[in-house]
Amino acid sequence: MLQNPLLFLLRAAQIYPDKIALAHPDAKYPVVYTFAVWAQRIQNLAYSLIRAGIKPGDRVAVISPNSPMMADACHGVLAARAILTPINTRLKPQEVHYILDHSGASLILIDEEYLPLIAGSERPRIVCKDTGTSDDPYEEFLSDGRCYSQERGWAGLDVEPDENAGALLCYTSGTTGRPKGVLTTLRGTYLAAIGNAFEGRIDKESTYLWILPMFHAGGWTFPWSNTFAFATQITQRTVNYPQIWKHFLHSKVTHYCGAPTVQIGIVNDPSAKKLTKPISAIIAGAAPTAHLLGALEGIGIKPIHVYGLTLPQTYGPFTRGYDQLFWTKMTLEQRSKLIARQGHSFATAEGVRVAEIRDDDQIVDVPRDGKTVGEIITRGNLVMKEYFRDPEATTKAFRGGYFHSGDLAVMHPDGSIAVVDRSKDIIISGGENASSLAIEQGKHSCLTIHPHVLEVSVVARAHPVWGERPMAFVTIHPEHVSRWSGRLDEFVKNLMEHAKTRLSGFARPEWVEVVPELPKTSTGKILKTELRRRAAKL
Amino acid sequence: MLQNPLLFLLRAAQIYPDKIALAHPDAKYPVVYTFAVWAQRIQNLAYSLIRAGIKPGDRVAVISPNSPMMADACHGVLAARAILTPINTRLKPQEVHYILDHSGASLILIDEEYLPLIAGSERPRIVCKDTGTSDDPYEEFLSDGRCYSQERGWAGLDVEPDENAGALLCYTSGTTGRPKGVLTTLRGTYLAAIGNAFEGRIDKESTYLWILPMFHAGGWTFPWSNTFAFATQITQRTVNYPQIWKHFLHSKVTHYCGAPTVQIGIVNDPSAKKLTKPISAIIAGAAPTAHLLGALEGIGIKPIHVYGLTLPQTYGPFTRGYDQLFWTKMTLEQRSKLIARQGHSFATAEGVRVAEIRDDDQIVDVPRDGKTVGEIITRGNLVMKEYFRDPEATTKAFRGGYFHSGDLAVMHPDGSIAVVDRSKDIIISGGENASSLAIEQGKHSCLTIHPHVLEVSVVARAHPVWGERPMAFVTIHPEHVSRWSGRLDEFVKNLMEHAKTRLSGFARPEWVEVVPELPKTSTGKILKTELRRRAAKL
Repeated sequence: MLQNPLLFLLRAAQIYPDKIALAHPDAKYPVVYTFAVWAQRIQNLAYSLIRAGIKPGDRVAVISPNSPMMADACHGVLAARAILTPINTRLKPQEVHYILDHSGASLILIDEEYLPLIAGSERPRIVCKDTGTSDDPYEEFLSDGRCYSQERGWAGLDVEPDENAGALLCYTSGTTGRPKGVLTTLRGTYLAAIGNAFEGRIDKESTYLWILPMFHAGGWTFPWSNTFAFATQITQRTVNYPQIWKHFLHSKVTHYCGAPTVQIGIVNDPSAKKLTKPISAIIAGAAPTAHLLGALEGIGIKPIHVYGLTLPQTYGPFTRGYDQLFWTKMTLEQRSKLIARQGHSFATAEGVRVAEIRDDDQIVDVPRDGKTVGEIITRGNLVMKEYFRDPEATTKAFRGGYFHSGDLAVMHPDGSIAVVDRSKDIIISGGENASSLAIEQGKHSCLTIHPHVLEVSVVARAHPVWGERPMAFVTIHPEHVSRWSGRLDEFVKNLMEHAKTRLSGFARPEWVEVVPELPKTSTGKILKTELRRRAAKL
Repeated sequence: MLQNPLLFLLRAAQIYPDKIALAHPDAKYPVVYTFAVWAQRIQNLAYSLIRAGIKPGDRVAVISPNSPMMADACHGVLAARAILTPINTRLKPQEVHYILDHSGASLILIDEEYLPLIAGSERPRIVCKDTGTSDDPYEEFLSDGRCYSQERGWAGLDVEPDENAGALLCYTSGTTGRPKGVLTTLRGTYLAAIGNAFEGRIDKESTYLWILPMFHAGGWTFPWSNTFAFATQITQRTVNYPQIWKHFLHSKVTHYCGAPTVQIGIVNDPSAKKLTKPISAIIAGAAPTAHLLGALEGIGIKPIHVYGLTLPQTYGPFTRGYDQLFWTKMTLEQRSKLIARQGHSFATAEGVRVAEIRDDDQIVDVPRDGKTVGEIITRGNLVMKEYFRDPEATTKAFRGGYFHSGDLAVMHPDGSIAVVDRSKDIIISGGENASSLAIEQGKHSCLTIHPHVLEVSVVARAHPVWGERPMAFVTIHPEHVSRWSGRLDEFVKNLMEHAKTRLSGFARPEWVEVVPELPKTSTGKILKTELRRRAAKL
């Protein structure tokens, strides 16, 4: 079996059979499973998949919010030696069809709510009504698996002998061009899950609340981190802040993951109050601002800032901003600049580099000056296997023997890295490279420190003279909305003044548009492509 | 680099350069190194080894108590892509010579105190006086390495490309027959170190006190667990209980490892007192008794009972007695029986089995009845590579595709294993299999629960009628020694009475000898071979 994340579940079911493994308390039909019961369900799923004709290496698609079926699939599909292909439920039907076709999924496990996404598809599917009751088609599927097993148990299921066999196949959300499929391995998932459990200090006393969708890069490998650590998991179908707070206050939650936008929603919810026991928030997707960090810490949430790619090219997080003793002597503002860095590699990752890749594929590290910009590259344990059925993109992504993240960063003298921008988020303004991230929340800027601003996103917009110029989309903090109501022009003027003293000319937004909310992906990442589209239309 | 435990040190030096990595406070010349300084020393060592002609795969022997040189070698020898061969300092010169010859060690790093062990050998050696001062030959060796490096740093050292390359070569202490060399891999050391760090909850706030010698199975991989977790390590040349207590009380110690006999020494030391902050004791080598567990817990030491082989065939510990919630409702006596089990596999190990291996190599698991005895077998991530230069022993040890531990055990209904005995420790008394362990501390017995007994060891002794009969060697608890002084016969009679009501005839010791102390290995394991020899002579 070697390095296979399925092992963690089997072990948990052996050692802590009666501990709560999975709870789904907010659905119409709440369910709670112990590790023994849950492992049996997962075993049933594996037998059912095999009975349905799934062969090793086949793809099984799952279209579901966070739910027991989704959690089952993370383990059961691997137990059938198949590849889990979770599909983002916010995609459009044509995108879903493309992914089903490209992955060649043999079967779809689908939550009833999302059936419209596969309307017209002939592919075999199992529908889940998320009831856990015996007349639910998904439950019938599991029961059939149990019968088919003839009580042969785990011993009756062949173990995948190759630790480098495929584990997950996740697709880009198609913000640019056609979605690409990222294929990960069992071994990488195993090591990333251990890394995340260790970095988050998850253990058997922990309760992990699912806010991040599991379809998003396989939930950053936390489905397996939690079984590794014997933690209890709580699933919720939706991101509902009052419900999250109910669990924070009453369900002994100790850990959750989320992008900064989700964290903002959490701290700003009216139910928010000071926690009596601290909760660890694993934050990725963008760097948290000083304001957000202060708000989180103020209510007893301990932020752990990690970094990885949106897709599981790096299995979710693989670097972290490691806190230092001297931070305790700093002001929040000073400290937040350090926390906001992407930091250093996880123990189970291979060292991350920031480098320039020459045309002859020679890799030249940037100096550790905190200034020179290079691309984040890495290799080794926590790097995907390939872009599925796309040898050309794979070769390109791995040129020089390293995986190229597409993220631009600097390396500080202490070896920590700090993302400057996605390559495509650089704004070439009058021949200068303006980093949209620096404009949004950089050191000298920045628009987010304006006291009335909630969120900012900056994109390039074509300019007749300068080629490109920054355009900012801004939301006003709820507390100050009424103040500026009907006087948005004045607010923009105020913000421009604020920017003038903080940003050099080429980096200063030429245009500012106040919007009620920023367009976001299902995981709370700001959709810059959408903003670029809007900017282009103006 | 992939799964190479050297990575942990490099990472610690990057992320926490100024944190104390290693302290050696009790030597004549105390030293303290930060991670940055220590990593530089280790780099120097690697360069010096290469300069001395060490090639990838060569063996570098180390003969040293726990000291900075010993700690350096755990990382520096791997950085030179060589195989670390630590030699037990308690061996006799002829045993040391045998090991040096068999391993073909190219170089010996030796602590000055142990020079007599290699008298007459022509092998190149570097002597360490454990002073850390510039005129120490070992320090000169490091300085030469630094010069030789020409400041090329880590980048100038080739990285071992094969994660299955040899890491450590450790020899049996030769209690039976000629010593065998156990060769481990980089990958296995990496995974075992992570497993130990996670099971012990070692993190960057931890301080690990070295009591277990590092030469013993590579200190159960804790040299790398500590760098993985960024923990501070304290080395001591000797096992000195008052000194251990000094560190417990004043050096913020959080973790240490030791066999039960060492733990007994710790709790019985006059300096022992209730700790204000708990310390975790990782216990292996034999199961702790109820009495010992009670004594440890009473002074604030949290016992973590793990199991592995004496040699690193399993890299030290690979199973653990996982505590259950319902244990808190039990009496110490009830609980200690469960803690004393060897339990379940570590997450990074593959599942342990208890089985009978038929002549045709077919493996038949014992039923989970807590009664049927089989051999502990395992395979996968935490199993050695081979017996060095001994293909025959390797083939025998791995028959049927599993590593055969030689330890006999039962499996309980909950899947936890409990060691019954080493195969050679079974006493065949009147055709019955009597387990010496069961006689010593079994469920129904047991001699150790006699209130005046400190330690017991039972071995087979030839008997004209029954073939073999158990013979017990006993030490009296210091508090009761005076009471029985001059009346040992009476004590023996008393103990025999005690045994009569608790042990069936064939398992009852036929002979009891009271001794001032039991013969032990350097790591505190009772030398049954020595006791058997004594019993044979009587």
